[in-house]
Amino acid sequence: MKSSSRRTVPIEVSARHVHLTRVHVQKLFGRGARLTRERGVSQPGQFVCKQRVTLSNEHYTLSNVGIVGPERGQTQVELAMTDARHFHLTPRVRVSGELRGTNGGLTIHGPHGSVALHSSVIIAKRHVHASPTAAKAASVQHGERVSIRITNRGGVRDITLHDVIVRVHKKYTWTLHLDTDEANAAGVTAKSRAVMISA
Amino acid sequence: MKSSSRRTVPIEVSARHVHLTRVHVQKLFGRGARLTRERGVSQPGQFVCKQRVTLSNEHYTLSNVGIVGPERGQTQVELAMTDARHFHLTPRVRVSGELRGTNGGLTIHGPHGSVALHSSVIIAKRHVHASPTAAKAASVQHGERVSIRITNRGGVRDITLHDVIVRVHKKYTWTLHLDTDEANAAGVTAKSRAVMISA
Repeated sequence: MKSSSRRTVPIEVSARHVHLTRVHVQKLFGRGARLTRERGVSQPGQFVCKQRVTLSNEHYTLSNVGIVGPERGQTQVELAMTDARHFHLTPRVRVSGELRGTNGGLTIHGPHGSVALHSSVIIAKRHVHASPTAAKAASVQHGERVSIRITNRGGVRDITLHDVIVRVHKKYTWTLHLDTDEANAAGVTAKSRAVMISA
Repeated sequence: MKSSSRRTVPIEVSARHVHLTRVHVQKLFGRGARLTRERGVSQPGQFVCKQRVTLSNEHYTLSNVGIVGPERGQTQVELAMTDARHFHLTPRVRVSGELRGTNGGLTIHGPHGSVALHSSVIIAKRHVHASPTAAKAASVQHGERVSIRITNRGGVRDITLHDVIVRVHKKYTWTLHLDTDEANAAGVTAKSRAVMISA
């Protein structure tokens, strides 16, 4: 029982969002602008910002897109594949921050200016965040690929996600991170349960 | 090897679409209007229509939504959960045609008129269509719930879909039917492979 409970992971679903460098924050929101916190997310120190941006290219426009702060070393756009298809883009599936060889193809718009991206548009690779303690309890290691079974009442839309990467860091909170396509395909609600079934 | 190949299923992805009764076709497109075929789909006799409709409620509007003909005994709207969330709806996950107890909450608009739905909006339950011969070859029966593993090059976004219903009918073509959320969560491309792993 103990080992099973240690392999149960809270689910967090991320809609499309962007991360921005300080230079791009100023380009989008004006000189001297800083990201301002609206609410925290599961990972300590990170937050959803009060500011929003618009993403566009010749095929599609998405307004009211969230920004996750604080400012980062690289600007990055994380789309669900459903979004990407509207933009006629086929971004790489990547872990956050691993942007080498990624495609661009859209422009970020703020009230003050715009940033055209020629790379750094990705589909987030599903992953589990774990502290070293949580990783040890679940018998998994940083960089390991695991499978996670998501179950719902009545078994409706139950799924096993393979290709889930474990990311271990002392600041991480034990959470499974999914995008909206994955959560919707699995019928995720507040009552869904996710359990790591292989390591 | 033979038995494995008999359990490999071609994948067909359906975007949101509607089915219409003859009465509703006339309400939307005018007296005497009939659905006109644009192209066939995998199931014999069914076709995507030249006509399109718009779906809307107070929260959201989706234009250019496809119609799958021919006319049916019941009008039905099939949304991806991603679409449903935009409409602030939580439709039941149902097999096509099983509309008892389903929710409505949106209006279908055509060039001639509109149809407000108080039921019949669903998320399609993922399913396999099989002829009796294909079902026998794969050792599955009508109504059975199976699991299907979808694999991609490099294992990216591999998934096992549980809760897949087998539908057997002499007119059915051996196909796995997914909606866009499921296909995107599994990273489905023309090269993806789907294999039934339990029966």
